[in-house]
Amino acid sequence: MSRQYDTITLLSDRGRVDETVGVLHSIIRDVAGEARVIDLSHDVAPHDVRSGALMLARSVSYIAPGVVVASVDPDGSAGRRSIAVEVGAGVGVLMGPDNGLLANAVAIVGGAGRCVELDRPDIALSSPGASCALRDVLVPAAAHLATGVDLYDLGSPIEPTSLLPALIAVPRLEHQQVIAEVMWVDRFGKVQLNVDLETIAHLGATIVASFGATHRTVAVATDITEVLDGHIGLVTDTHGLMSFASPRRSAAAELGITVGAEIVLAPALSQDTA
Amino acid sequence: MSRQYDTITLLSDRGRVDETVGVLHSIIRDVAGEARVIDLSHDVAPHDVRSGALMLARSVSYIAPGVVVASVDPDGSAGRRSIAVEVGAGVGVLMGPDNGLLANAVAIVGGAGRCVELDRPDIALSSPGASCALRDVLVPAAAHLATGVDLYDLGSPIEPTSLLPALIAVPRLEHQQVIAEVMWVDRFGKVQLNVDLETIAHLGATIVASFGATHRTVAVATDITEVLDGHIGLVTDTHGLMSFASPRRSAAAELGITVGAEIVLAPALSQDTA
Amino acid sequence: MSRQYDTITLLSDRGRVDETVGVLHSIIRDVAGEARVIDLSHDVAPHDVRSGALMLARSVSYIAPGVVVASVDPDGSAGRRSIAVEVGAGVGVLMGPDNGLLANAVAIVGGAGRCVELDRPDIALSSPGASCALRDVLVPAAAHLATGVDLYDLGSPIEPTSLLPALIAVPRLEHQQVIAEVMWVDRFGKVQLNVDLETIAHLGATIVASFGATHRTVAVATDITEVLDGHIGLVTDTHGLMSFASPRRSAAAELGITVGAEIVLAPALSQDTA
Repeated sequence: MSRQYDTITLLSDRGRVDETVGVLHSIIRDVAGEARVIDLSHDVAPHDVRSGALMLARSVSYIAPGVVVASVDPDGSAGRRSIAVEVGAGVGVLMGPDNGLLANAVAIVGGAGRCVELDRPDIALSSPGASCALRDVLVPAAAHLATGVDLYDLGSPIEPTSLLPALIAVPRLEHQQVIAEVMWVDRFGKVQLNVDLETIAHLGATIVASFGATHRTVAVATDITEVLDGHIGLVTDTHGLMSFASPRRSAAAELGITVGAEIVLAPALSQDTA
Repeated sequence: MSRQYDTITLLSDRGRVDETVGVLHSIIRDVAGEARVIDLSHDVAPHDVRSGALMLARSVSYIAPGVVVASVDPDGSAGRRSIAVEVGAGVGVLMGPDNGLLANAVAIVGGAGRCVELDRPDIALSSPGASCALRDVLVPAAAHLATGVDLYDLGSPIEPTSLLPALIAVPRLEHQQVIAEVMWVDRFGKVQLNVDLETIAHLGATIVASFGATHRTVAVATDITEVLDGHIGLVTDTHGLMSFASPRRSAAAELGITVGAEIVLAPALSQDTA
Repeated sequence: MSRQYDTITLLSDRGRVDETVGVLHSIIRDVAGEARVIDLSHDVAPHDVRSGALMLARSVSYIAPGVVVASVDPDGSAGRRSIAVEVGAGVGVLMGPDNGLLANAVAIVGGAGRCVELDRPDIALSSPGASCALRDVLVPAAAHLATGVDLYDLGSPIEPTSLLPALIAVPRLEHQQVIAEVMWVDRFGKVQLNVDLETIAHLGATIVASFGATHRTVAVATDITEVLDGHIGLVTDTHGLMSFASPRRSAAAELGITVGAEIVLAPALSQDTA
């Protein structure tokens, strides 16, 4: 058994309420008995490709060398090709649908090397009914890679340039404003934006955040401990991005904002505050 | 250590919100250090033996060879015997309460071989309070089996015919109708019935599904991609059974039906539709 | 690799909905490839140190020898030291914030041996943003311990007596009453109190439980099977503590009580009942 790909990391929107994910572990155990399986998460919101892509992008630099199998695919298996993308000069292989889910993570770790379409029917599992790409194609291919099969033996080579690109919002700079977007609300109600400290440094230490009809003045803080109880600060989070956060309370609940909301950030003196 | 039973697959209704399942993993690690533990699911609805039995039946042909420990037991440990059932000529052993939970899975993989009642107090763990069959009897027995102990050393032999049988609804055929039942609503809102394509083939390509006071005309489709956006189709799912499904939407929410509902399927021309 | 600490058990309030916990597994896999990781639970209510401490206390005597990493810390990383505490003459090491989270478990397994503050920056991971003690300090330290590094090489020795003690309510005895507290409501609605059978033995076999304006007469039972359908009994649970329980129903829902509620237990004849 190859040591190179003996860790298989799974990300999906299947949840853990039924047996789906346990079956994936069983299939890997059958084919590649010694491979370690790590569940990154299976609670991506159903069909939410963008959230899945962000999870993968946030975590990819921490993921142990090996194979990553990601599956969030609102349009189902039919008609969507399953792909495998080599990254980091072969340190890792990312597998998933060709719908942009992998693209951010691939870019963060240096771009795509060899790519294949996973189209080998003899490696796929046959289904008792309709085909399920995750169970029947992606996971069996990952398990075979873990046993030492070469990437090019898993399917037909394809051009990296043919892959669907990522569709992640980048912040826009307009006049003295930064138009940001909410990327993530975590379990504690922290609200992560798609901007880092450098992008908003020119706005100063006190910022007006506007969304919908609401204007809110917040202080930029270097750490949550600088934010007073009952207040909301704009702090650098553990991923290096700016987040609205409040000590021991949900900033998301208090602000009433959710993933995807547009947030206009401006210097405190340049507009009215509420 | 025996290689034969070195994978232990767990299924229960204990949830993962508290430490219960982690403790099971710890007990196995203590007794059978090298055994791999796979969580099929622990989110069977509390006390719902039928749902647990269906999960096990859907997944049993995928489960890696080894030991399966299943526990859903509304009447508690007291008075209910814990059993172990050899299947597949010794490829696997299923353990659980003798309440029908295992019966479907046992039947699917060819029926019961050797059976024992897990009544050896020296293998069970002592409890600081009331006994918990899953923690104190089933999991320790599975761990000992993984270390190479023979099945007959885990308890007293019993007759397979003495086991409580499964109570799964089979579809009824009446006149030109098929009386089906909802077996499962998955995370995406697909509604699985207890019928396959062959059972409803004589009803034609357009079917009226009736439940309560509702009549709904649906097309039989071979794949979800054939169902138009906003419509519900009756498609063969990834388990080979017929499911109501709608692209990127919850068919269950739109139809307003839940597990256990009776669904009458009839040819479209034979009755009124709403 | 040391066999001594090759099991790492995790407990936290991070949930499994996002990638946080998967990243912890990846970090361990990178540093200590052969270590086994067991998730005790990650669903401690956000910031609820007391619930986390109780989970750890209930399970510590079952946890496989090795390292335990626990993290529930409402005040964040800044200013709170991360500690490692040897227990059981080196059989295990508990790591976490110095906020009382570990204290009950440490006491149950015999008290603290060697202690260190995890203050070695060369063992910690650097963060792309703010530091996260669990990801950047605790988990890397546990992984290094698993590879054979000595505890004293992970940080500066500290006095066990300097650690924050546990703050768990003990029952009070007043006149002929026992003033108890609800410690836990499990997935099935069992209501665990902080008293065992011995503590309430002098109250007799029928007890009046009072909380808020409610008085409820309950029978003390040795097992849930002794409680009649539709009734609530006060039974010794699987952890050896007294719990309100009802067959196949949620006692918590019927009584309308939650964690932290004060319950006055008195002999049935000494006061009015409702």
